[in-house]
Amino acid sequence: MEYELLNSIDSPQDLKKLPIEKLSQLADELRDFMTQSISQTGGHLASNLGIIELTIAMHYVFDFKADKLLWDVGHQCYAHKILTGRREMFSKLRQKDGLSGFPLPAESEYDQFSVGHAGTAIPTALGLATACQSLGTDEKIVSLVGDASIVNGVSFEALNNLGLLKRQMLIVLNDNSMAIDVTKGAVAEFLSKVRLSHTYEDMRKTTSRILEHLPVVGKKVENALENIKKTFRMAITRSRLFESLNIPYFGPVDGHDIASLVQLFEALANLDTPAILHVYTKKGKGFTPADDDPTRFHSTGPFEINGQKKTSSAKKTFTDAFGDCIAAIGEKDERVTTITAAMSDGCGLVKFREKFPDRYYDIGIAESIAVDIAAGQAKLGLKPVVCIYSTFLQRGYDQIFQEVSLQNLPVIFCIDRAGLVGSDGPTHHGLMDIGFMRMMPNMVLIAPANEKELISAMEFAVSSNSPVAIRYPKDFVSDGEYDLPQFAEPFAKGRSVTLKNGSGNIAIVAYGSMVIEALKAAEILESDNIDVSVINARFAKPIDEKIISLIASGSSIITVEDHGKSAGFGSAVFEAAASAGCDCAKLITLGIGDEFIEADSRSGQMERVGISAEKIAAAVREKYQD
Amino acid sequence: MEYELLNSIDSPQDLKKLPIEKLSQLADELRDFMTQSISQTGGHLASNLGIIELTIAMHYVFDFKADKLLWDVGHQCYAHKILTGRREMFSKLRQKDGLSGFPLPAESEYDQFSVGHAGTAIPTALGLATACQSLGTDEKIVSLVGDASIVNGVSFEALNNLGLLKRQMLIVLNDNSMAIDVTKGAVAEFLSKVRLSHTYEDMRKTTSRILEHLPVVGKKVENALENIKKTFRMAITRSRLFESLNIPYFGPVDGHDIASLVQLFEALANLDTPAILHVYTKKGKGFTPADDDPTRFHSTGPFEINGQKKTSSAKKTFTDAFGDCIAAIGEKDERVTTITAAMSDGCGLVKFREKFPDRYYDIGIAESIAVDIAAGQAKLGLKPVVCIYSTFLQRGYDQIFQEVSLQNLPVIFCIDRAGLVGSDGPTHHGLMDIGFMRMMPNMVLIAPANEKELISAMEFAVSSNSPVAIRYPKDFVSDGEYDLPQFAEPFAKGRSVTLKNGSGNIAIVAYGSMVIEALKAAEILESDNIDVSVINARFAKPIDEKIISLIASGSSIITVEDHGKSAGFGSAVFEAAASAGCDCAKLITLGIGDEFIEADSRSGQMERVGISAEKIAAAVREKYQD
Repeated sequence: MEYELLNSIDSPQDLKKLPIEKLSQLADELRDFMTQSISQTGGHLASNLGIIELTIAMHYVFDFKADKLLWDVGHQCYAHKILTGRREMFSKLRQKDGLSGFPLPAESEYDQFSVGHAGTAIPTALGLATACQSLGTDEKIVSLVGDASIVNGVSFEALNNLGLLKRQMLIVLNDNSMAIDVTKGAVAEFLSKVRLSHTYEDMRKTTSRILEHLPVVGKKVENALENIKKTFRMAITRSRLFESLNIPYFGPVDGHDIASLVQLFEALANLDTPAILHVYTKKGKGFTPADDDPTRFHSTGPFEINGQKKTSSAKKTFTDAFGDCIAAIGEKDERVTTITAAMSDGCGLVKFREKFPDRYYDIGIAESIAVDIAAGQAKLGLKPVVCIYSTFLQRGYDQIFQEVSLQNLPVIFCIDRAGLVGSDGPTHHGLMDIGFMRMMPNMVLIAPANEKELISAMEFAVSSNSPVAIRYPKDFVSDGEYDLPQFAEPFAKGRSVTLKNGSGNIAIVAYGSMVIEALKAAEILESDNIDVSVINARFAKPIDEKIISLIASGSSIITVEDHGKSAGFGSAVFEAAASAGCDCAKLITLGIGDEFIEADSRSGQMERVGISAEKIAAAVREKYQD
Repeated sequence: MEYELLNSIDSPQDLKKLPIEKLSQLADELRDFMTQSISQTGGHLASNLGIIELTIAMHYVFDFKADKLLWDVGHQCYAHKILTGRREMFSKLRQKDGLSGFPLPAESEYDQFSVGHAGTAIPTALGLATACQSLGTDEKIVSLVGDASIVNGVSFEALNNLGLLKRQMLIVLNDNSMAIDVTKGAVAEFLSKVRLSHTYEDMRKTTSRILEHLPVVGKKVENALENIKKTFRMAITRSRLFESLNIPYFGPVDGHDIASLVQLFEALANLDTPAILHVYTKKGKGFTPADDDPTRFHSTGPFEINGQKKTSSAKKTFTDAFGDCIAAIGEKDERVTTITAAMSDGCGLVKFREKFPDRYYDIGIAESIAVDIAAGQAKLGLKPVVCIYSTFLQRGYDQIFQEVSLQNLPVIFCIDRAGLVGSDGPTHHGLMDIGFMRMMPNMVLIAPANEKELISAMEFAVSSNSPVAIRYPKDFVSDGEYDLPQFAEPFAKGRSVTLKNGSGNIAIVAYGSMVIEALKAAEILESDNIDVSVINARFAKPIDEKIISLIASGSSIITVEDHGKSAGFGSAVFEAAASAGCDCAKLITLGIGDEFIEADSRSGQMERVGISAEKIAAAVREKYQD
């Protein structure tokens, strides 16, 4: 498409050449470009549409080649990418050899950290700012943080430590009163009170009052704040939270009034102290379907510009299957509760939430306490099910250890997005959960091969008196393809299931969804006249002794897991085999090596790391020919 | 000793029989008993002396057989233990088969969670309270939280979610204006402002005003709070932080006025909403040396009642050695900063702090952001050294992954208390750090055998362009005992060092401080005419190929680590050996099994799990006789 202004912006330097009056037009063009482009590629639409003016204004004022801009979560950096020389690449968003959907230093010097988890922008900014203080350099530090991220414990810990700084550090609070789902908690309520007490007209007044009293060259910021506050109607309520933490607070202001934003940034850039600028934006701004349903357009696949999904796949995902399963279990067992950290939809909890609102807990982006709340509930006899993506569960590591494993409480962890996740890339793969959880006493680790197994895995977990973690990938369930009777066997602790008894002396031992790949590999190998056994491990902890006996008997074993090889399922098999005195020379583990896997389709990633059916077959062939 | 009242208190039921006027005498007796006893056993003295009245008052009012009392960190539960039937056992505090220094459900039905990490009391209480809400039961929930713990991110996340509750849950904020070191940060400053604006006389008035307006049967707590506040001088400032989070706040009140505390708890027990009672206590109260120097008496060994240390060991610990080393490195390299989470003393940072206050960061009990601040500093070219105990580093797991490993930033992790820690027991052992860090790309893991090696390990780390983690135990350095020239060899990436070349075909491959045990084991074995090699692995990631070659050549290998066997150093050796196609049948790993190790001396624990010199020798003997 031809855009009068946008097409000539290849760097923030080009942007700075535009007169301020042209910036609104640029925003419109950017919004159109972005919507068109994401309708083809998919991506995080709503949040990116909401901060176009904000992003333009920041780049217009700061020089982020020298100054540092930090993104929280990071999926809202699209306008930033487009303005910093990546417009042409934008059509390859979240694709192999394309643009990452998150900030990525390898892509651009304008990106500082490769991030995708919430709450890191303020603490890492604090690191940069203390470093500048130490080094005596004067680059400006700006963090852009959403209202859903700022309630995360690590954001709070950083806010509590801003006193370390005797220099500038600006926190832009992008308040769209909307986490991925609707933001929960006391801070959200506080922000919403501020919002309700504040009309559009008030925002304009606030802006002009801030500008009237800033910059504060030669004056103390406290005095400026006092002067600003004096003219406010609701001053005390509005700034109370941040004031009690001793953080100069400015706002709220209109996040779509680009000219005012430019002036505000110019004024705030020169403070010699940390400060918060509270900005209202509208998620999905300017694109009606996203405007109306920002949750649906949070992270979307390709869509028609009229707002329809382009291809609505009839296939069922593990997430869908879990959603049906947990709703059914909730029906049968009143003790069952579910806990999510702002991922109701992503974790498949919508049905459960609708049916059992009293047993459903969304505690915002706060994975650590999701685990603790579950521990407390389990202590009193409930059956809490903690639903968190593998990579985000890393935030609850210590809680899983101390509050669950050490107490041996029957908390159930349902770990979605375990394994390779495709287009989100390295920040979102879940490649460590087996390793970090199998070190913990009392923990039982299982993975279902398909929907049927997911249901029995959940039944096993609910009837357990110890913590159980169930992992499954961001993928479709394959129940239609393979309907072996063995899938119907109930889960029994530490028991694998043999799916295919080969005539040879080779067995593929697969964990979780890799079982289907293993079955496919076995078919491929059959055509080569190699007849392998296929074992569905089901448990990564404890490892079935049958698997160890097989190794002891001299079989060649290939373990397959959608997880890091280091410390993973295969590693656990090694440990068990070696401690039983087995020769492990005939053991091969397939899984992800010691590297980060860039964005691509999930199947492309599986192929690359060697856990696709073809690659499993190839590994067996190699072993067989030895 | 004979105590008129204390000797007859075998349960809280006995306590409840005393008239309220006698409680002060009981507090005095308890204080004397506790000081006498800890002077023999060692333990956390100062914090426990500070909350004797508070503990008595809570047990006088609540019935913690049905009601639930949650301790934060937990080392301040001594009076609670003494009052709940464990007085006779108290002389075996923190000893084998004795009393845990932390709450322990296995010990008593009055203990809910086995805890030792900060910030868990409010989130687990939230779990219990939501469960009660679900189950329709009406037990009272009380969390006792220190001013140092409440700033932890997980505490904040829980405070932000108290809105989940439509029932009672009392948070007692035990404010002694003192973390283990002095509390840092904005909340601390806020609390200190409240403290300074509040005289002793004010506290008495506050108490009587709270009592005047409570209980609120049939009235709204908001109205009571309004009425209480109306009569306050500094009302707005005082409650602002908690009010902005929508949490009813009462206080501050005197934590040593036992009669008032009883009345306050009686009144607050009947609120139908969560609330905070802010209580001032004095750390070390009543025992002059602890009163004067609470940091020294935070966790003390045995001492004379006049305040002297009983036996001041002349031996140098790894912590001491690190303290000297980092101070020397700070001198040589201006880029080096240190970051600690309220553990300046425990991590050996006192010298560095004194010499380089501008490059020393204590961010309070906030391990997650300690990692992020380091990441930010490393990004701008500094050499941050993050000093955190192994078990507490679990709080920074996700940060180490995303903000350090994924960015490949040269952050140095100095992991003290790695391995078995002796008397603190299961919450404090550091048995997972090798496992959880070796899964991360870019990470290099090393461990020194002694002080000389610690220094070269640090030199290696400081000159590295990637993240490096160095682990060492809570133990003495043994440089005097073994002064082999090999210890002086500089660390080279992935290179082990052979300390002893045995004539046999057996090698002990030891990691970190286990090297010294391995050398001792080799001596023991010499007297049995078994001549083993001893290899100092130095690196857990990457594993030296020389070790793999040794396995490939058919040697019997015994790996020794002060870490869980699961996913640990030995497991990494397995993985490397197996992926090189080695027969691992001659490989044995010694380390900690899949269990929790109770309090004991460190040497007793090493003996028990089989990593002492004697046990290593025994394992070799067994292998040799095969």
